[in-house]
Amino acid sequence: MDDTRLQATPLQADELRNMDRFWRACNYLSAGMIYLRANPLLREPLKPEHIKRRLLGHWGSDPGQSFVLVHLNRVIKQRDLNVIFLSGPGHGAPATLAHSYLEGRYSEIYPDRGETEEGMGRLFKLFSFPGGIGSHCTPETPGSIHEGGELGYSLSHGYGAAFDNPDLIVTVMIGDGEAETGPLATSWHSNKFLNPARDGAVLPVLHLNGYKIANPTILARIPHEELEALLTGYGYKPWFVEGDEPEKMHQQMAATLDECIDEIRAIQQRAREEGNTQRPRWPMIVLRSPKGWTGPREFGGHKIEGTWRAHQVPVADPASNGKSLKLVEEWLRSYEPEKLFDEAGRLVAELRALAPEGPRRISANPHANGGALCKALDLPDFTEYAVDVPKPATSYVSPTDVLGQFLRDVMRRNMTSFRVFGPDETASNKLTAIYEASQKTWLAQIVESDSDGGDLSADGRVMEMLSEHTLEGWLEGYTLTGRHGLFATYEAFVHVIDSMFNQHAKWLEKAKRELRWRQPVPSLNLLITSLVWRQDHNGFTHQDPGFLDVVTNKSPDVVRIYLPPDANCLLSVADHCLRSRDYVNVIVADKQPHLQYLDMKSAITHCTKGIGIWDWASTDLDHEPDVVMASAGDIPTMEALAAVEILKGLFPDLKIRFVNVVDLFRLLPDSDHPHGLSGRDFDSLFTTDKPVIFNFHSYASLVHKLTYRRTNHANIHVHGYAEKGNINTPLELAIINGIDRFSLAIDVIDRVPRLRGVGDHAKERLRDQKIQHLDYAHTEGIDSEEIREWKWAG
Amino acid sequence: MDDTRLQATPLQADELRNMDRFWRACNYLSAGMIYLRANPLLREPLKPEHIKRRLLGHWGSDPGQSFVLVHLNRVIKQRDLNVIFLSGPGHGAPATLAHSYLEGRYSEIYPDRGETEEGMGRLFKLFSFPGGIGSHCTPETPGSIHEGGELGYSLSHGYGAAFDNPDLIVTVMIGDGEAETGPLATSWHSNKFLNPARDGAVLPVLHLNGYKIANPTILARIPHEELEALLTGYGYKPWFVEGDEPEKMHQQMAATLDECIDEIRAIQQRAREEGNTQRPRWPMIVLRSPKGWTGPREFGGHKIEGTWRAHQVPVADPASNGKSLKLVEEWLRSYEPEKLFDEAGRLVAELRALAPEGPRRISANPHANGGALCKALDLPDFTEYAVDVPKPATSYVSPTDVLGQFLRDVMRRNMTSFRVFGPDETASNKLTAIYEASQKTWLAQIVESDSDGGDLSADGRVMEMLSEHTLEGWLEGYTLTGRHGLFATYEAFVHVIDSMFNQHAKWLEKAKRELRWRQPVPSLNLLITSLVWRQDHNGFTHQDPGFLDVVTNKSPDVVRIYLPPDANCLLSVADHCLRSRDYVNVIVADKQPHLQYLDMKSAITHCTKGIGIWDWASTDLDHEPDVVMASAGDIPTMEALAAVEILKGLFPDLKIRFVNVVDLFRLLPDSDHPHGLSGRDFDSLFTTDKPVIFNFHSYASLVHKLTYRRTNHANIHVHGYAEKGNINTPLELAIINGIDRFSLAIDVIDRVPRLRGVGDHAKERLRDQKIQHLDYAHTEGIDSEEIREWKWAG
Repeated sequence: MDDTRLQATPLQADELRNMDRFWRACNYLSAGMIYLRANPLLREPLKPEHIKRRLLGHWGSDPGQSFVLVHLNRVIKQRDLNVIFLSGPGHGAPATLAHSYLEGRYSEIYPDRGETEEGMGRLFKLFSFPGGIGSHCTPETPGSIHEGGELGYSLSHGYGAAFDNPDLIVTVMIGDGEAETGPLATSWHSNKFLNPARDGAVLPVLHLNGYKIANPTILARIPHEELEALLTGYGYKPWFVEGDEPEKMHQQMAATLDECIDEIRAIQQRAREEGNTQRPRWPMIVLRSPKGWTGPREFGGHKIEGTWRAHQVPVADPASNGKSLKLVEEWLRSYEPEKLFDEAGRLVAELRALAPEGPRRISANPHANGGALCKALDLPDFTEYAVDVPKPATSYVSPTDVLGQFLRDVMRRNMTSFRVFGPDETASNKLTAIYEASQKTWLAQIVESDSDGGDLSADGRVMEMLSEHTLEGWLEGYTLTGRHGLFATYEAFVHVIDSMFNQHAKWLEKAKRELRWRQPVPSLNLLITSLVWRQDHNGFTHQDPGFLDVVTNKSPDVVRIYLPPDANCLLSVADHCLRSRDYVNVIVADKQPHLQYLDMKSAITHCTKGIGIWDWASTDLDHEPDVVMASAGDIPTMEALAAVEILKGLFPDLKIRFVNVVDLFRLLPDSDHPHGLSGRDFDSLFTTDKPVIFNFHSYASLVHKLTYRRTNHANIHVHGYAEKGNINTPLELAIINGIDRFSLAIDVIDRVPRLRGVGDHAKERLRDQKIQHLDYAHTEGIDSEEIREWKWAG
Repeated sequence: MDDTRLQATPLQADELRNMDRFWRACNYLSAGMIYLRANPLLREPLKPEHIKRRLLGHWGSDPGQSFVLVHLNRVIKQRDLNVIFLSGPGHGAPATLAHSYLEGRYSEIYPDRGETEEGMGRLFKLFSFPGGIGSHCTPETPGSIHEGGELGYSLSHGYGAAFDNPDLIVTVMIGDGEAETGPLATSWHSNKFLNPARDGAVLPVLHLNGYKIANPTILARIPHEELEALLTGYGYKPWFVEGDEPEKMHQQMAATLDECIDEIRAIQQRAREEGNTQRPRWPMIVLRSPKGWTGPREFGGHKIEGTWRAHQVPVADPASNGKSLKLVEEWLRSYEPEKLFDEAGRLVAELRALAPEGPRRISANPHANGGALCKALDLPDFTEYAVDVPKPATSYVSPTDVLGQFLRDVMRRNMTSFRVFGPDETASNKLTAIYEASQKTWLAQIVESDSDGGDLSADGRVMEMLSEHTLEGWLEGYTLTGRHGLFATYEAFVHVIDSMFNQHAKWLEKAKRELRWRQPVPSLNLLITSLVWRQDHNGFTHQDPGFLDVVTNKSPDVVRIYLPPDANCLLSVADHCLRSRDYVNVIVADKQPHLQYLDMKSAITHCTKGIGIWDWASTDLDHEPDVVMASAGDIPTMEALAAVEILKGLFPDLKIRFVNVVDLFRLLPDSDHPHGLSGRDFDSLFTTDKPVIFNFHSYASLVHKLTYRRTNHANIHVHGYAEKGNINTPLELAIINGIDRFSLAIDVIDRVPRLRGVGDHAKERLRDQKIQHLDYAHTEGIDSEEIREWKWAG
């Protein structure tokens, strides 16, 4: 096992000394950010009033992160490398902030925190200070595409950044706490999806600093052999850099990094020059260094360095405790700031020379401001994929099947900047046409029997792994570095990534609203499919349309929800989403064959408006309606139309207005969302006093959440998924949740004043029909033909 | 590596032959469930009308699962073992249903599906049939505590079941698809938390059948050495059973299972008799068998067995295609049903004899119907932990700190049936007192410096791992087997387990509403803490109170949400939750010091009602109020009270009614939730026409979602988290989201008709005060003392 620790000493004495000084400058700045509100260069003795009134920040992982950054600088300069750095450990921002400040990039973006004593003081003060700088690598952090506020996604983000960036080396520092999360634990397998010929390299650095907030970490407390086996089992070649003596560690790290870069280049050369894309064993580094390295060794009889006590603020009370103040001063002075910074407060020239220049600086690398590199997709004309709809609601087509054809050609025209992601379900979700443009990415073993259905290839651009976390992480990394994609996933299980969605939406909002220097990035497009209303056969666990509730909680600046009722609307929506920037677009569309309502021209008009009256389905032309029948979603729309048809047969003079909603946020007031309708427009659609029967795709309460301030809200009666289901037929599932045609028609009869009494007999017959259909389903196992093939008679 | 595959042949010829026949009976039933609606024993030639009209179900993993079950039976009988079985692969229920039917247990519970030809026919027909039997191991499945509708949780469920069940062996069959998920990938590390002296054993069986729906699986396509390294790295000793010839495979499996049970017993003996609880290398099995083993080899020129084509229904169209029908008939007849079942349709006696008896049957093991074994917790009197509150809102206490003391004593009294779970945050969440009763579970390496803060021990009962998925999975497994627990987690990151919560709530609902034979299990108690309003210093990523929206979408039969405003209310709520059954209880309570409002007696009354007027904070005694000030949540309550005090100073004759909500579902109508208030009761609290200013912990729209049908809804104005935050002070965060005292007071002035105009000057001063406080925060980095230490003057 000895060969996993390198003994070479590639650094000359001078080089080593200066690298160590650069590192100490980073550490000085990190500690300064945590403690100081004044006296940043310690030009006078440290006094209580120099200490911040509230001490916040996380010291523990900073020195280890800075250590890696300093060494990355060396290889970047030496070999002119293109490197970005993702900081996985939570709250470890002082290290990256310090480094970007020393590279000069931080002051370029934030001139009020310049490379002067005053600027340094301001950086210190603002860190973890109200209205100031966050303790994670937030969007405000130059060079960051990974905030790390929630743990677990650094490695999948890193791989996402590396795809289709052949020149890039993505260094991902993984905290050993973070490494315990599920998303991180499976994201190691991303190496089975990275093509050394076409993609860049990912260099994971697992940072074993031993402790989380209050506990040791698992990976730091298993035997060396076990850890090595684990990482080997994940498919890597791990190199170990372990110790606490800076001099030895610098030599080890330099030797190891040289070795890793050599291996990466050799792998890439084999793939690119010899055409060998067999899955390589990519190198990685395990850095075992003390938590809070170079910080106070002990205090008050407790060990600090190397323990959980170094995780956050290692010495808690310097403003009120003289001993603590002395210790903090000694600690800060141990870095000898007077030898690191010049009179003006700027890093001395010989150290400045260690950092790369211009865009080679990690904090200035344009890949970490992906919008700057982003090119618009070359999109085919989506209208050419239109489904022929000569008459509304008379033919069945799978919307995602049609979308798949469009996406196939999007893929063909953008073979280095567009990918499709899905958990083993691209085919199941009827997006199969995409495979005509590109196979599925796969660098693990391929066997003969795969080929007749698998279409696996190292060159594939369709990403399938049974981990929604990894897919979402890849796509986030891919879009944040300026490329485009779409993630198609099972509606019930998109909740798996609720939290990732939340974090990405938060990132986009900050970047978009507050950071001019961050260029807009491609939107994250989520296609939610295998919808609740066709999960009748999969049962209760597969029925959950509640992701939309999570989405509506995020800022209206960055979230969009579309429920295209048919294939042509889906095409129009998809085209719009693929052109957009800085949003999370959620598209809800089922994969089964569904009725088609609108020809392409009508679909474009309808989707552009986002909501509208369907005249062809309405009977209120030139009249005040008796009732508004509204719908959002493909199946609810079909049932609502079928209800209209039933009602037309029963009450030929009933005036029904049919409204369909594509863009869900149209329901909100325009004061709450940029897509919201004004009160006047809303009222002109939904009236101010007529009953509205709204058949909704998801939980009914969401429509109320969006419309409660509307004039006519008291008359809006929403039907939606009521958390009732089992193994059913589609109609049975609709009936038990009350979104079926019969229940809707009954509700109309109940709500329209002039039908009360008059409609009693009809209601009874409708109830009987429900029972008959349930009986049929329970005998035959399917819905009756008249239901399965229902069409609009017009 | 050869020693990982055993060559012994422990089975005698007869035994082998009968075990193989039992297995074939399982496989026959599995295939029958997928295809047949009639002619279950093939006593006449197979005709199209015998075939179901809609073919559903998943054949692929069934034979492998049955294979394991048959072999488990052998060791259970031979050694009188106590074994349960968790089926990880999705949709693999036919195998477990078949097995439970052959054990006789299925017919005991469902007598209409008896051990007769007719009963078998009914089982076949009902499988994946509307109103019938699900294709996962749903709550309806005897012997199941793991549905597997969503993938990834089998192993954490298994460990949860094994904790504190020293006699139990939990066999967990892990699908190689499922193994790609993040939650599963990290749950392997659960072995660092299993104490061989005190806990049972978990025997993972990784089933490499090679394919997911449409793709190969990663773990089946990495070299043997890599897979072995991975599993070794996870801390297991893997044994490989690989092949497709039944005879050889039976011998290999029997030998391997013998070896594994021997190793388990040896480990337990070392721990229990010799006191050696050093983390052992627990055995596990890798079963590599063909997908759809024993099914059709090929059809229409395509390979089926051993490929992804065997995943679901291997031959799609037997009702309409003669060739297919013939193939299905040949396949079914290849199991020779006439030799497996007697004239009446019952399994022949010599095969029946292979199954264990009574509660030793896997499908009848009482641990898989945990309510049957469940004992109520021995709870201390929670009132003894009361905080002294002589005057409302004048003293500060950390509510979770108080709760910790109660939980400490709950732990002490229930040292084999209660555990507390948390992701590295039990101390951070101020539940530290628990450590006085029990240490943290840790079987990985312990070093000297841990001891002064770590309190790690193999005997610990506080479960901490940085994986919300694993913790939630453990707790689910623990409660489903009849034991009690509480999971305390960070509010923003509880979204990580949104989907697990959904699935568990669905399980509880089915079990509770539809299955008399399932006994009620302890509720799953989630303590949501580190709340949004005190995440001012951690920033935007740590601010997300939206989990409550996810919870409110689930069935009112099983979900409860409590927002105790102070420590005494928290105690009362916690006591209630720990006594309850079959719910998911969500308790929202912060860890920071907060104002205390109610003495214990008042707290009990208030929590029992769940909502109520606080007279001491109201000024409308004997009058109609001008305005209702309502609150839910600790910080919003403080700000609402501070607003009342401001208003009292400004407008001494203003009549304010103060309402506090603990039990959030009180806001719903009683028709929608068992805790809902009647219209009359709601109106008596909130009036029918007065403005209501509601200060809410979470997103404002949730209150509207719950109250939109109330008489006075149009006058309810909710303040809540508006997705605005950064690094702030607490007051600053409140102000930018409008839940602060000044904003509330301004809103009252705006809403109370008689204050319009009169209050303009006051409003201006209040706005100035907001600005002053923001200025102070941005200068000093903290809120001013008067805000930090605000108390109710009364």
